[in-house]
Amino acid sequence: MFKITHKSNKSRAGILRTRTGEYETPFFMPVATKAAAKYLDVNELGEINTSAIISNAFLLYLKPGLDVIKKHKGIHNFMNWKKCIFTDSGGFQVLSLNNFKDKFSDNGLKFKSPFDGSLHELTPKKVMEIEEAIGSDVAMCLDQMPLYNSSREQVEQATRRTHLFAEQCVKYHKDSKQLLFGIAQGGTFPDLRAESSKFISSLPFDGIALGGLAVGEPLEKMKEMIKISIENMPEEKPKYLMGVGSPKEIIEAVEQGVDIFDSVWPTRNARHGSLLTSEGELDIGKSIHKTSLLPVDKNCNCKVCKNYTRAYLHHLHKANEPLGNKLLTYHNLFFMQTLMQKLRKAIKDSKFEELKQEYGGF
Amino acid sequence: MFKITHKSNKSRAGILRTRTGEYETPFFMPVATKAAAKYLDVNELGEINTSAIISNAFLLYLKPGLDVIKKHKGIHNFMNWKKCIFTDSGGFQVLSLNNFKDKFSDNGLKFKSPFDGSLHELTPKKVMEIEEAIGSDVAMCLDQMPLYNSSREQVEQATRRTHLFAEQCVKYHKDSKQLLFGIAQGGTFPDLRAESSKFISSLPFDGIALGGLAVGEPLEKMKEMIKISIENMPEEKPKYLMGVGSPKEIIEAVEQGVDIFDSVWPTRNARHGSLLTSEGELDIGKSIHKTSLLPVDKNCNCKVCKNYTRAYLHHLHKANEPLGNKLLTYHNLFFMQTLMQKLRKAIKDSKFEELKQEYGGF
Repeated sequence: MFKITHKSNKSRAGILRTRTGEYETPFFMPVATKAAAKYLDVNELGEINTSAIISNAFLLYLKPGLDVIKKHKGIHNFMNWKKCIFTDSGGFQVLSLNNFKDKFSDNGLKFKSPFDGSLHELTPKKVMEIEEAIGSDVAMCLDQMPLYNSSREQVEQATRRTHLFAEQCVKYHKDSKQLLFGIAQGGTFPDLRAESSKFISSLPFDGIALGGLAVGEPLEKMKEMIKISIENMPEEKPKYLMGVGSPKEIIEAVEQGVDIFDSVWPTRNARHGSLLTSEGELDIGKSIHKTSLLPVDKNCNCKVCKNYTRAYLHHLHKANEPLGNKLLTYHNLFFMQTLMQKLRKAIKDSKFEELKQEYGGF
Repeated sequence: MFKITHKSNKSRAGILRTRTGEYETPFFMPVATKAAAKYLDVNELGEINTSAIISNAFLLYLKPGLDVIKKHKGIHNFMNWKKCIFTDSGGFQVLSLNNFKDKFSDNGLKFKSPFDGSLHELTPKKVMEIEEAIGSDVAMCLDQMPLYNSSREQVEQATRRTHLFAEQCVKYHKDSKQLLFGIAQGGTFPDLRAESSKFISSLPFDGIALGGLAVGEPLEKMKEMIKISIENMPEEKPKYLMGVGSPKEIIEAVEQGVDIFDSVWPTRNARHGSLLTSEGELDIGKSIHKTSLLPVDKNCNCKVCKNYTRAYLHHLHKANEPLGNKLLTYHNLFFMQTLMQKLRKAIKDSKFEELKQEYGGF
């Protein structure tokens, strides 16, 4: 199911095999929360060498509802994306939609639908049923993510519940064609992080996620937590750092042995005009670009850099034209997928240090 | 510059030659007001066989400004669309932005920039300079369009000024590579419409537009005005019905001898979920489509109909996903360009009546 093909110090290149195919790691997943990437269609995601995306089981369960997805025989047909799809359980979205009022108990999560006010309960069993009905390649466990700056007691409770949920998810997950990943929590407390990583690793998951990071903690703290996590997880399992991130964060994490990433960072930044280039970040909204005939990044081979000037993209961005959001999103995701290709190659060629220097602008 | 190649009663198929190439008429122009079509990039416009688009000289003059467009050596390079571009002068946008307070005089149009409050005057001479700097294939004259339900006196004044402006535009238009189209007004008063059509036809324009229609009058009234206009214009000139429209309106107008169209109708409708199909309009937001595995139009060959179900498009539309707007826009414009192709073929094959029946659902 997961095979490490190359190693370079702690970083590794591998292949994840799922129901839809084989995917080279490390990879980065654009976010398609409601079964759609913002502004890009599936052909465009394919053009930029995307191998996997992540959607949100909880939101799809509410809308369009499982009946619609089942009628399509799963999310791949529904959205016409035939490669890898992860589904997150969506506990975090529930908290967010309920203004982070704590609705968790040891049984799961109670919440009110933001669409019609109806009451729902997400137990681990229910979450497994939802994700199996959706038919994703990889289902994520229900977890409780403590917010950054929670007290030790709060993190302990959330981590304890995450462990309860993990055991229940293993018990109730039935679809042998769907992979199941556990999620370790522990906040930024080294001992809790180590304990949770060990506990989740002790269960028969197909992969393990590092949850509750990239939520506001300093980069050094995140790196420390990644290190502790990886040290307490078996080498052979694929490791997924949820919600990360920037090129710098991804390079740091791959160096420590992480295989899988997802984040809204590149797409959200694109919509705010912040572009990724070989020389670092570029704010296309700045007036210096108003008359520039240069491409966003002269070293980039994407269709946006090949076809449009900074001046044109500046104009679209300032005029709030949807085409601007689309082109900037496309460029940033192309940059990320190119970064991931280079990371895979650097690991195979044992040239990780050179690659780190190449991306020194971040 | 314009050659009629086929005739079928009053309808005709022809070829318009501009600085960028030869374009078969009748054609329909998607609107790219600020040098961008909503949600679609130029590759996608090309995919659906778009030959021409229309942009707005006045808005481009304000933003990004002529310096930026000149630096790109014209709008074609600026937006990377190498086929035909019309520019409207933008008088109508000025009125709209200034809440239709009448700022016209016999000299032109005074207005305050919506961006920085600066004062500007658009004289016919200035408008010609702007459109030449933009470098469009076809420049439209400055005109004064009376609003629907204006009094006879108001329409008379607007038409008189439109004629003054037309004479000035002819005088000040210098770029021999750019075509110049006049615009006839006259509201819905038959005698004024006839008089204006004659007057504009008497000037040495490369083409003639029917202005001030599709602004709220009943279809029968519009048809009457088109008839009067065409009867008072020379056969050999290309005729452009501005701001039209729906398939039904376009078919009616082509039947009377109109060659060129533009409208936000198909793209705006798409964003509201109203889709064009071979069986008439379809509201994708209706709950009947929530679980439908059908394509939008089983007779449509566009990539949206080939790849997505109504249920998925319903979901995107209800969830306000930008991808929904993009896919629905793409389908509607594909439908329009297919309609125009069929119209050209029907004229060549003398099968206009059969085509009218095919589109009887509208």
